[in-house]
Amino acid sequence: MLRQSLTTLTVETRSQGFTDLTGLLNGQIAASGLDTGMAVVACLHTSCSLTINENADPRVLDDLAAFLRALVPAEGVAPLSGRGALRPWLHDDEGPDDMPAHVRTALTATSLSLSFQGGRLLLGTWQAVYLWEHRARPHRRELSLHLLGT
Amino acid sequence: MLRQSLTTLTVETRSQGFTDLTGLLNGQIAASGLDTGMAVVACLHTSCSLTINENADPRVLDDLAAFLRALVPAEGVAPLSGRGALRPWLHDDEGPDDMPAHVRTALTATSLSLSFQGGRLLLGTWQAVYLWEHRARPHRRELSLHLLGT
Amino acid sequence: MLRQSLTTLTVETRSQGFTDLTGLLNGQIAASGLDTGMAVVACLHTSCSLTINENADPRVLDDLAAFLRALVPAEGVAPLSGRGALRPWLHDDEGPDDMPAHVRTALTATSLSLSFQGGRLLLGTWQAVYLWEHRARPHRRELSLHLLGT
Repeated sequence: MLRQSLTTLTVETRSQGFTDLTGLLNGQIAASGLDTGMAVVACLHTSCSLTINENADPRVLDDLAAFLRALVPAEGVAPLSGRGALRPWLHDDEGPDDMPAHVRTALTATSLSLSFQGGRLLLGTWQAVYLWEHRARPHRRELSLHLLGT
Repeated sequence: MLRQSLTTLTVETRSQGFTDLTGLLNGQIAASGLDTGMAVVACLHTSCSLTINENADPRVLDDLAAFLRALVPAEGVAPLSGRGALRPWLHDDEGPDDMPAHVRTALTATSLSLSFQGGRLLLGTWQAVYLWEHRARPHRRELSLHLLGT
Repeated sequence: MLRQSLTTLTVETRSQGFTDLTGLLNGQIAASGLDTGMAVVACLHTSCSLTINENADPRVLDDLAAFLRALVPAEGVAPLSGRGALRPWLHDDEGPDDMPAHVRTALTATSLSLSFQGGRLLLGTWQAVYLWEHRARPHRRELSLHLLGT
């Protein structure tokens, strides 16, 4: 018999970087008593995001973070010609790391749909689900986790 | 008892930019009579996309648009060296704003999976769901909205 | 009566580029006997991804590939100033095409949520679902396909 479970999870982040959510999500699936179904994880913020990437070599995460820092500079947006000074971000009320965080969120994922089977997320061997914090300071982040299955 | 509802929505866009879909989607959820469930919103086009971002300061949207315009230039793709002239887009039959629109779509989201509860999307305080038009001229855009819940 | 089906699909890729999954996915939906429901497609790897884009002019795919190759250079990550030499990728154990593949995966989609109706994916006229291989050599790739509907 199909049934659903919808909960909110809180994750504390320390700074820009990655928090591996895989264990937390698997624990929630186990606690739900569901074996097989769909999972929707959503990040309820606009300056952090979700991503699935490698769970083995931490240098993958370092390279990912370095890439996104360079792609979305703290100083502002590139001129259309690609040459000359950056145009500072218009939205700067919450500090210089805020608008780049919104852009980095837009380029990654705010929600993920996945499957679970045997009471665990159906992921590849090298996959982990990460919360990607884009703000510089520690934040308390809320996620929703929706399970629908048998 | 779980049941589903699948509808198609039409949204008129005026030019490159954002249309806040949150109220429209919440209205559809209310009309469905469902209280709690999963929602899948999909954009049935390849030159506009979906994104979740801040609903408060409109300068966030201005900065997002400026960033994506600079990242995916209308003039073409950057040389691999990062130096020298842009190589014009190969696909240009539908005008100079078409291929950049396909790339901007690929970098954002064509579909979103979310949860709803109490007859409304479960979003963070500062989140809105936007249709992001990447073409220059007005377009009539179709979205599918799929609700599955109780 | 709602029911679900969860299967794993294998796709052979030849090199960097796109494999159209639309026919394969529609065949699986037809075989499931389901008419209307939600579909979650997930890529169980961190160096290839999923995307929905144009199904008509192959130059769209050429331009997409050229853009992502230029955006995420094989040689490394751009300096924060945007000027000067690239900093080589830290993660290089699996070859020079591996870390760029992880970044390209992070910028596109690892999973997609879609709807199906009449036994077929509900897509726009010009949309196809692609597996986007980011590694240089052929790979055997696994996808999960989850259908939940009536």
